[in-house]
Amino acid sequence: MHYIMTIQDYISRLALPKEPANLYEPISYSLEGGGKRLRPQLVILSAEAFETEEGETLRDNGLERNAMNVASAIEVFHNFTLLHDDIMDNATTRRGRPSVQTRWGVNGAILSGDAMMIYAYSLLEKVTPYLLSRILPVFNATSLRVCEGQQMDMDFADREQVTLAEYEAMIGAKTAALFAGAVVMGAICGGASREQTRLINEFGYELGIAFQIQDDLLDCYGNEQELGKRIGGDIVEGKKTFLMVAALERADEKTRYRLLSTLHNKEMIPEQRIATILDVYAQLGIRAIAESAVTQHTDKALAALATLDLPKTEPLRELALELTKRIA
Amino acid sequence: MHYIMTIQDYISRLALPKEPANLYEPISYSLEGGGKRLRPQLVILSAEAFETEEGETLRDNGLERNAMNVASAIEVFHNFTLLHDDIMDNATTRRGRPSVQTRWGVNGAILSGDAMMIYAYSLLEKVTPYLLSRILPVFNATSLRVCEGQQMDMDFADREQVTLAEYEAMIGAKTAALFAGAVVMGAICGGASREQTRLINEFGYELGIAFQIQDDLLDCYGNEQELGKRIGGDIVEGKKTFLMVAALERADEKTRYRLLSTLHNKEMIPEQRIATILDVYAQLGIRAIAESAVTQHTDKALAALATLDLPKTEPLRELALELTKRIA
Repeated sequence: MHYIMTIQDYISRLALPKEPANLYEPISYSLEGGGKRLRPQLVILSAEAFETEEGETLRDNGLERNAMNVASAIEVFHNFTLLHDDIMDNATTRRGRPSVQTRWGVNGAILSGDAMMIYAYSLLEKVTPYLLSRILPVFNATSLRVCEGQQMDMDFADREQVTLAEYEAMIGAKTAALFAGAVVMGAICGGASREQTRLINEFGYELGIAFQIQDDLLDCYGNEQELGKRIGGDIVEGKKTFLMVAALERADEKTRYRLLSTLHNKEMIPEQRIATILDVYAQLGIRAIAESAVTQHTDKALAALATLDLPKTEPLRELALELTKRIA
Repeated sequence: MHYIMTIQDYISRLALPKEPANLYEPISYSLEGGGKRLRPQLVILSAEAFETEEGETLRDNGLERNAMNVASAIEVFHNFTLLHDDIMDNATTRRGRPSVQTRWGVNGAILSGDAMMIYAYSLLEKVTPYLLSRILPVFNATSLRVCEGQQMDMDFADREQVTLAEYEAMIGAKTAALFAGAVVMGAICGGASREQTRLINEFGYELGIAFQIQDDLLDCYGNEQELGKRIGGDIVEGKKTFLMVAALERADEKTRYRLLSTLHNKEMIPEQRIATILDVYAQLGIRAIAESAVTQHTDKALAALATLDLPKTEPLRELALELTKRIA
């Protein structure tokens, strides 16, 4: 997909200030870290889906520039959240390299993260004025939702009991809101109507939920080579994923105890904890439950997209299918 | 001054979301903490100084709403910086109450600070669209400068040698840029021309420098009752203030050693460290040097204001004099 290259190119050419080096180097370092650039792709593909004329519209009226700046702003914001999340999770690595707080210390990571968020907002400055006043409220609401989701996630860590509904509300805020915000802002750049915006919002939101549950699935059943990380990382970190929450909901008292004590038992060797929990998942049929949830949310997303009845939504549909069928 | 009341009122009525409580309570807590609300006052007084008509203009054309929202955004942003600075400084109290990280932990303070910054941006949404595209770049550039200043401040802590020029560049970014941004954004709300904006920027910047040096002076020579805190706090924290940097520049080798070893000697009792350093300041005439710097920067600020030649700048002039003559 040539969009990834274009976005990659655009992001790598962002002209960050050089001084103070301890403030800006961590930002460049974070942005160079790669990642799939999914969220900016969603912005661009959504903007293109709403082009009313064949062909050159986006390029002609500055909407390509608008979409590209919104896309970069979202990607910078997303990477800012990873930077601050890594402090909160005490993560020493990110995408196979030392995390920012490992290299620059916690204070450096806090402050460069702050500057990174401001930098995301500064990319919005280049958006055409009449669109900016529609884009900024969506960007703000979306960003605030991501913080709410992270807070819910932290709150869940301290709780024994989390329902699947609560879990979905959490990933709805932490992950799906940013997918939704991406396609909605892309749609605004492309000139979407209010009703169209509502439908594309639903597409992004449902896709985000499906994506996150799929991500939880991959952590247990994915391919280590393809993922570039070890299986069971979420279990080792004691995270309450979709699979864990579903298992806790379905387990009897004894199995619940076994799950929770294994999840938080730092004495047990990681491989043993992973094997024990995967064994419980197998007994309870958790994988099928999660796969069915991914399918349901993907179907909802695609239904919303189909209702839009636009000629150029195929790339969005393909991306959605690609993201939610990551197990071969 | 009735503006303080109005701003106070406006800020206390901001409708923050309630849930998740651990995200939003620290924000309300920070905003309720008080403070002098200087920066929002600067926005409002600057906007009023640029009213072209007598009387009702600000109220009539929505500029009062614009100025009030920009003022609140700046105050929320300023309080966000205090929240994150307190984590970096490991400060247990703020304005006589436990700091946010003391009450909610470091992770809670990082995340609620992030949400607070986004909330500041969300207040800008209410600015009239054609002004928003002029205000947002100033808000972004100003905010980024504040981060740069904080980084310079942290970098200085690790260095033995800091020149007065470097110190002024640091407070220029950390403190004065926000004063300048406040009056510039106020001026934009009030309909200032580009040349007028340049002059009011100079007023705000010079006032900010004078204010910070005055703040450094008060820490050594202020009135404990009026300040509401003990004298010598900056010395106890080992901070490189204007006075310390000026003293280090003027001291001979032996006195430099005495200053630095006392500043960083956590074994010595605080009163002894303060007395030793104030003694060196007295020998080197540091108080007079700092007072003269305050006067010079205040004069520059007032000269820029006078050059504007507007009928309604008196409240800004009074505020500037009040801020920079805080020792009776």
